[in-house]
Amino acid sequence: MDLEEQQTLPHSPFAQPIRCIVKLGGAAITCKNELEMINDEILHKVSEQLRQAMISSSQKPPGMDWSKRHRASEICCNPDEFKDHSVIDCSPFIVVHGAGSFGHFQASKSGVHKGQLNKPIVKGGFVATRISVTTLNLAIVRALAREGIPSIGMSPFSCGWFTKEKHISSGDLSSVAKAIESGFTPVLHGDAVFDDIQGCSILSGDVIISHLAAYSKPKYVVFMTDVYGVYDRPPTEPDAMLLKEIAVAEDGSWSVINPKLQNSVELTVAAHDTTGGMETKISEAAMIAKLGIDVYIVKAATSHSLRALSGVLRSSIPNDWLGTVVRSSR
Amino acid sequence: MDLEEQQTLPHSPFAQPIRCIVKLGGAAITCKNELEMINDEILHKVSEQLRQAMISSSQKPPGMDWSKRHRASEICCNPDEFKDHSVIDCSPFIVVHGAGSFGHFQASKSGVHKGQLNKPIVKGGFVATRISVTTLNLAIVRALAREGIPSIGMSPFSCGWFTKEKHISSGDLSSVAKAIESGFTPVLHGDAVFDDIQGCSILSGDVIISHLAAYSKPKYVVFMTDVYGVYDRPPTEPDAMLLKEIAVAEDGSWSVINPKLQNSVELTVAAHDTTGGMETKISEAAMIAKLGIDVYIVKAATSHSLRALSGVLRSSIPNDWLGTVVRSSR
Repeated sequence: MDLEEQQTLPHSPFAQPIRCIVKLGGAAITCKNELEMINDEILHKVSEQLRQAMISSSQKPPGMDWSKRHRASEICCNPDEFKDHSVIDCSPFIVVHGAGSFGHFQASKSGVHKGQLNKPIVKGGFVATRISVTTLNLAIVRALAREGIPSIGMSPFSCGWFTKEKHISSGDLSSVAKAIESGFTPVLHGDAVFDDIQGCSILSGDVIISHLAAYSKPKYVVFMTDVYGVYDRPPTEPDAMLLKEIAVAEDGSWSVINPKLQNSVELTVAAHDTTGGMETKISEAAMIAKLGIDVYIVKAATSHSLRALSGVLRSSIPNDWLGTVVRSSR
Repeated sequence: MDLEEQQTLPHSPFAQPIRCIVKLGGAAITCKNELEMINDEILHKVSEQLRQAMISSSQKPPGMDWSKRHRASEICCNPDEFKDHSVIDCSPFIVVHGAGSFGHFQASKSGVHKGQLNKPIVKGGFVATRISVTTLNLAIVRALAREGIPSIGMSPFSCGWFTKEKHISSGDLSSVAKAIESGFTPVLHGDAVFDDIQGCSILSGDVIISHLAAYSKPKYVVFMTDVYGVYDRPPTEPDAMLLKEIAVAEDGSWSVINPKLQNSVELTVAAHDTTGGMETKISEAAMIAKLGIDVYIVKAATSHSLRALSGVLRSSIPNDWLGTVVRSSR
């Protein structure tokens, strides 16, 4: 379904306004070149920043991961800390994460994104991909829960979402809305799903974000990645320039307004991102910005990502902030 | 919703007949007295038996868990084994598992089953319970996938299922049916879910089985547990007698027909089963049997469970088979 169509849809299942949708990019939270390896340091820092942005209390709330610590016998958080705790207000956020070094190997090895579920290798790849991405989802849900964020893993496949030509053809949001209403933080992810035409496909985190944004109309969207934002050329090149502000016209076309550029813009493409590089990211961001929602693309686990998550950038962008803001020119 | 009501429901989402619904009891597949500890040996054996019952091929099919082996760097199964593999026919089974030493600690510590989601401890317990049960679900899905069973984890919470007074008030089965239709084996589990009246609750694996059985009308249902079946007294007692056959009348009442008993029956109650002991199990089994579906209660990972899974017991029960069959007296 096109975002334009969605704009005119009368009904949103969200009774409560969403403050922010956050994308945790696969490249940021996993180690790109090592199969199924989480970047624990970044994930911990990101979870801490999310807690700071979502929960205003000065005191860190009790942790909600009461499972055994990885490779140990003691549990992660002590339930008894809840004893005298009063109600903790948690701002309505939705978290979506990519796959990074989880899922991509399994998906590309089998060609799940190309469909043909009747082929044994594709069926096997579908199962293998879902195992890998749900493993990452569980790790992220646990990291957030340890910070006291009431995180709830929700797989698009289990939610009954379908794709059709890379778009979401069926993506009922009532479960997500109900979770938000009940004070939880849904954690969705790029997933292997059924496809109306080709049997199966990969639904990317970025497409999920667009779908969620169109229906829930959050105040802002933050994309966390492993570089400071969008550059005019690969950020590893010495003269690469950070594009600080991109304006999106009503027809969806976009232009860089800060810094003022002479040449046309060559875009960086993240090497590990099979579901769409930086160009896809800007296009998706532009589609969201067109709805009147500010989009911030920032480096995860930095002071810049914390400012983006907190929402302070909505009034004005400080000069020392590093990142890319994509917003409507209206 | 009562099973009786469901019997008269006109529409089933299952286009394809289900052969068997299997319950993997928490007591069988986890170590009861150790927090979050899987009984790896039993789980492996159970997965092997499920594969033998589901996939007729003499050759073991290629494994579908291409994730890294636990605590190692190599992957569990080699995707290249699929290269020359022709289509593998997999019989339509649905797997449901309990929680055992996963989830119970978190649920009972917080009282999730009693509702009151507005209390911080209950909210925390809801998150913690879901983390624990989805951890077990992932481990079971992986064990089945390693045997070549196309297993797909489906959490009742994510599927949008709700309870009302211990029953399922909303339990859309279209996702489960679609997974079956596409040749996958859905793996559901006891879960923390929203409740229409008290806010939240625990939906037990046994209630899920009843719901699935009523709508999908499987040929038979197998409950795998850690004892040989249902006994007339706690099976640890020296004179405990295995109840081999229980007949269920049209009104749902049941009686033991083999062996012929003199005294009234005292039932064993599994110590670790907070969502319902053996008596609940017989009542649930009786409700399923009333629909004309044979129910076998067997000890997991034995020759008896393999015979139950294969369906050979449907024609006649051999004298050397140990287990309890619950079926309609009609």
